[in-house]
Amino acid sequence: MNNFGTVFRVQIYGESHGAGIGIILDGVPAGIPLEISDFEQDISRRKPSKTGTTPRIEMDTPIFLSGVFNGFTTGAPLNIFFENRNINSSVYKDFKIQPRPGHADFTSNHKYNGFNDFRGSGHFSGRVTLGLVAGGVIAKKILNNIQISSEIATIGKLEKNISQEEVDRYLSDIKKRGDSVGGTIITTVKNLPIGLGEPFFNSIESQISSIIFSIPGIKGIEFGAGFEGVTLLGSEFNDCFIDKTGKTLTNNNGGINGGISNGNDISFRVAVKPTSSIFKEQVTFNFEKNKLSSLKIEGRHDTAFILRVPVIVEAATAIALADLYLQNLLRRR
Amino acid sequence: MNNFGTVFRVQIYGESHGAGIGIILDGVPAGIPLEISDFEQDISRRKPSKTGTTPRIEMDTPIFLSGVFNGFTTGAPLNIFFENRNINSSVYKDFKIQPRPGHADFTSNHKYNGFNDFRGSGHFSGRVTLGLVAGGVIAKKILNNIQISSEIATIGKLEKNISQEEVDRYLSDIKKRGDSVGGTIITTVKNLPIGLGEPFFNSIESQISSIIFSIPGIKGIEFGAGFEGVTLLGSEFNDCFIDKTGKTLTNNNGGINGGISNGNDISFRVAVKPTSSIFKEQVTFNFEKNKLSSLKIEGRHDTAFILRVPVIVEAATAIALADLYLQNLLRRR
Amino acid sequence: MNNFGTVFRVQIYGESHGAGIGIILDGVPAGIPLEISDFEQDISRRKPSKTGTTPRIEMDTPIFLSGVFNGFTTGAPLNIFFENRNINSSVYKDFKIQPRPGHADFTSNHKYNGFNDFRGSGHFSGRVTLGLVAGGVIAKKILNNIQISSEIATIGKLEKNISQEEVDRYLSDIKKRGDSVGGTIITTVKNLPIGLGEPFFNSIESQISSIIFSIPGIKGIEFGAGFEGVTLLGSEFNDCFIDKTGKTLTNNNGGINGGISNGNDISFRVAVKPTSSIFKEQVTFNFEKNKLSSLKIEGRHDTAFILRVPVIVEAATAIALADLYLQNLLRRR
Amino acid sequence: MNNFGTVFRVQIYGESHGAGIGIILDGVPAGIPLEISDFEQDISRRKPSKTGTTPRIEMDTPIFLSGVFNGFTTGAPLNIFFENRNINSSVYKDFKIQPRPGHADFTSNHKYNGFNDFRGSGHFSGRVTLGLVAGGVIAKKILNNIQISSEIATIGKLEKNISQEEVDRYLSDIKKRGDSVGGTIITTVKNLPIGLGEPFFNSIESQISSIIFSIPGIKGIEFGAGFEGVTLLGSEFNDCFIDKTGKTLTNNNGGINGGISNGNDISFRVAVKPTSSIFKEQVTFNFEKNKLSSLKIEGRHDTAFILRVPVIVEAATAIALADLYLQNLLRRR
Repeated sequence: MNNFGTVFRVQIYGESHGAGIGIILDGVPAGIPLEISDFEQDISRRKPSKTGTTPRIEMDTPIFLSGVFNGFTTGAPLNIFFENRNINSSVYKDFKIQPRPGHADFTSNHKYNGFNDFRGSGHFSGRVTLGLVAGGVIAKKILNNIQISSEIATIGKLEKNISQEEVDRYLSDIKKRGDSVGGTIITTVKNLPIGLGEPFFNSIESQISSIIFSIPGIKGIEFGAGFEGVTLLGSEFNDCFIDKTGKTLTNNNGGINGGISNGNDISFRVAVKPTSSIFKEQVTFNFEKNKLSSLKIEGRHDTAFILRVPVIVEAATAIALADLYLQNLLRRR
Repeated sequence: MNNFGTVFRVQIYGESHGAGIGIILDGVPAGIPLEISDFEQDISRRKPSKTGTTPRIEMDTPIFLSGVFNGFTTGAPLNIFFENRNINSSVYKDFKIQPRPGHADFTSNHKYNGFNDFRGSGHFSGRVTLGLVAGGVIAKKILNNIQISSEIATIGKLEKNISQEEVDRYLSDIKKRGDSVGGTIITTVKNLPIGLGEPFFNSIESQISSIIFSIPGIKGIEFGAGFEGVTLLGSEFNDCFIDKTGKTLTNNNGGINGGISNGNDISFRVAVKPTSSIFKEQVTFNFEKNKLSSLKIEGRHDTAFILRVPVIVEAATAIALADLYLQNLLRRR
Repeated sequence: MNNFGTVFRVQIYGESHGAGIGIILDGVPAGIPLEISDFEQDISRRKPSKTGTTPRIEMDTPIFLSGVFNGFTTGAPLNIFFENRNINSSVYKDFKIQPRPGHADFTSNHKYNGFNDFRGSGHFSGRVTLGLVAGGVIAKKILNNIQISSEIATIGKLEKNISQEEVDRYLSDIKKRGDSVGGTIITTVKNLPIGLGEPFFNSIESQISSIIFSIPGIKGIEFGAGFEGVTLLGSEFNDCFIDKTGKTLTNNNGGINGGISNGNDISFRVAVKPTSSIFKEQVTFNFEKNKLSSLKIEGRHDTAFILRVPVIVEAATAIALADLYLQNLLRRR
Repeated sequence: MNNFGTVFRVQIYGESHGAGIGIILDGVPAGIPLEISDFEQDISRRKPSKTGTTPRIEMDTPIFLSGVFNGFTTGAPLNIFFENRNINSSVYKDFKIQPRPGHADFTSNHKYNGFNDFRGSGHFSGRVTLGLVAGGVIAKKILNNIQISSEIATIGKLEKNISQEEVDRYLSDIKKRGDSVGGTIITTVKNLPIGLGEPFFNSIESQISSIIFSIPGIKGIEFGAGFEGVTLLGSEFNDCFIDKTGKTLTNNNGGINGGISNGNDISFRVAVKPTSSIFKEQVTFNFEKNKLSSLKIEGRHDTAFILRVPVIVEAATAIALADLYLQNLLRRR
């Protein structure tokens, strides 16, 4: 089954080359002001526009199919739809015959016995993350004064603090070679109240990681000091409290103790794998010919899909936190 | 709210120094042979017994409160309970006054307005993972021929391939200094069928990470090539298929494409932070005195709780996969 | 929160006078043939067409927003949308000022602090049951050889076995007086396998009644002998088994024992209240004038909405049973 | 699957002749005072004590396995257990051979392939409703000033307003004949705030009926005017508002409009079938002999289980309303 959340519940639907994609949200409080223009900034951040992103351009204007009236949320299920307009299915071969390495072609074909919509990866396309971004806009409004910001920390082999010019050069070079890159994204949440996170199965880390790994291409997540932190001793790792607000001297736990927010900044880092679609020739199994064979992927692809991911990570984080935020309102008598 | 799973659903309950701890499982198919002795091996692996683990010894014999009859599961909710026997609450101070760094004392006290059971960390104690291990025993039976194995990859600053003798020396030294360490655990799942994982929100990575982060002390997870993998180019990262079973030449995706198992080994690595409870003195805020103050934690603690974690990670993985395994049986007509 | 089902999960969205209404289904097995024409018969049965139904005519052609490809379900979330075309909001006053008796005007306005879409009852309109009917079409396909049939047993004061002519006369007369009627509907499910129904909270009766009471206007449900049956003695009520298939001599339990189907026909009866919207003048509180005041409802209404309800009850029943049918496949090892 | 609720979630476990029965509650706010003595009154009301109830006596003292500390709820999962003490399984034959009419013997045996605990009906015993009563005690505390009261309206063929003496005579007579009776129960909820009930699938009627039908032996439910109401005209049925609090002149809708509470008393009536276990000989199929055969049920049974049901209905209602009450706190911004 496939939805996320307990009291702020979302479901993603749609395919890359079908009628469109969207998100339906349940449990949105009534009375939140909501206009088309509220979505512009985040959707525009997700759009391909820089070196290293696909030339497929969609207007991506949200259509409220339900749940919004006179500029406010109504409290009823809120369905936001984005039409697919710029579709060119002809370049998409039947990837059942020769599934693209790294993609869901092989697995989804097997899981659904060949009935999955394979065009442009169908429901497994990165395009469906647009729904997540739309949901994030509403989640951010619920979270109000809480700031969530995601930014790229590293791209491929480039370390931090590299100039944009160098990044462009790096990506142009990779694009020229028909290849792709990934990277890491760091996310910080400021002003989160103390107490979010449900005990045991629904820790903050559980909820955030669960939704973050729904974003195609994410292969790792670490909170606070993460994997580096395991080389510290307990006396080095422990974040001592320094005042009555719960502020800590260090933040190796990433703002979370026992799965519950402690009022310090939440911080986590995610690993985004290199875009699976590359123009470069690959040798992979052809199920029709029953032998290894060369594959050349055509169409429109991102050299570095990661460039579009920060706003998606932000949105996913907002959705997870909005659900925990609302649940937490009910925890005290 | 706090439970895990869709068709194989589990809930953990209990506190470290209350009546006991346990797990209730819903959706267990009827007819699975189940005896007390089935739990011995995994529970024993979780027990403190080696250098670096707590001297608190519990018999930890499971009691079937419901759902088992004549040596088989009945199909009704299965409740497995473990009594707390070796309790010594006297050494546990009221951690509301001076919350222990790294622990849930501060956050749970705040979240529950002081009503949480603070003794020995209460519901936030590592002891409740015993319920997870018990649930894992049943999940493994559902998964039948699928092998899940977790083992320690690194402890603290020790690299792999260190002799047990060196580990003992290293841990004895840290223990002597009243300090603690963490480490990393690597998990491999063999023989998993193709097709597990639900699209978008319930990817295999989402489900596994969600339950893994419920284990106290886990701060990171990465699948396949994980964080290292982001420095590869797409042409290096992509796992090309080499035969009609879907076997891939490399396994940078950790056996998962598009959130769905591809038949290759699932592999992931988790980061376990150093045990938060240390004997070494720490300077941290005292909420009664309203100033920084020295804290000396007494009681019984693990120098390296990580030594007991592999079987817990295995159990959590089994629970997540059993749920996806059963769901997947319903995906084709 | 607002959805239904565990492994076959549905959510209704939309408003009477918004963009449209629809249903999103999760857990639909892949490979079910599905065409627009599959919906015609049931949608047509729901349409106003007879004496006693509204003159509002909608084409009500389903649009597959997702989850269908090349004439088959794909296994991804399936979103079916119906545009609202024949909208005339002008006749709908602001029912916040003088809420219509029997309607959700007062309660939804209060619950959502005035932000609900009140036009034509918004999300509380009978129109949203169209989504249920669409979901029922797919549920019936999952249930395959199982026959579900709902028919009107009584209308208003008319007993059974009344000729259609008499019904027409009766309804015309009521319509002329600007009034409305309700009635009862009897549903029978044939060929249901033994074993559907989950213990305790998810009994067949629980699941069916839960979804049936989501249909606007339903005020009662009884299974088998129902309310009449309580005057029988145990020896009269008990359904004795008469052969090895589990066939029973009587069927006072309505085909259900212990919340689980026993292979005999499921039978239940529902009470549909008279349509709340009547043309006849009503004296009810005016919240602006702060006093009782006459209310005259204009617009288009059903004299006997019950005439359109049987197919909705069928659909709801099919959805509940499809969910239990799929769950039951997992109950044995 | 088998649990109930969204933010106040309960699960029942246990068998009639196993270790015991219980309920686990998730989402209980922290800080609710809770003592063993709080359960006495409701448990005692459920106990067999009057003419027409079983001689099986259990102390039924709740044991808090988790979630309660120092006399208050902690916010962690709350597990309440009742030991089975007065067990005498010897009189229970193997009901697989000759399933008792009206019971779950046949269906549960089939569903679980013979692995169900059949002793004393196992998980399908009326005894498990004790867990529901325990859960109701906590739900009532959450609902605070809201009064829920259930009482018997009719027993068997006896109309209302019959003296207790006549009832005793009636039941003694039926008991003498080895037979059993059912009846109807009427429930009233006073002081419920306006606004409880989630749109469409989680209407108040949906939630209440769903949990009420989990109580063994319930075969019907009707709200407000119910089945009688369908013979009224709309102008007679509609409940006109008479003041600004939303008070209505009549209450044919049973305090619910559009699935949402309107501030008037919630009222509903349930049908309880005659106890299935009777001492009187029954002729029913014997699956071993493969022919009809006489069945004589021994053991301890209620002549009129309905006498013990009102407090169970109250508890179930409280659980359903507590969940909706908490959800409703989140519906406005």
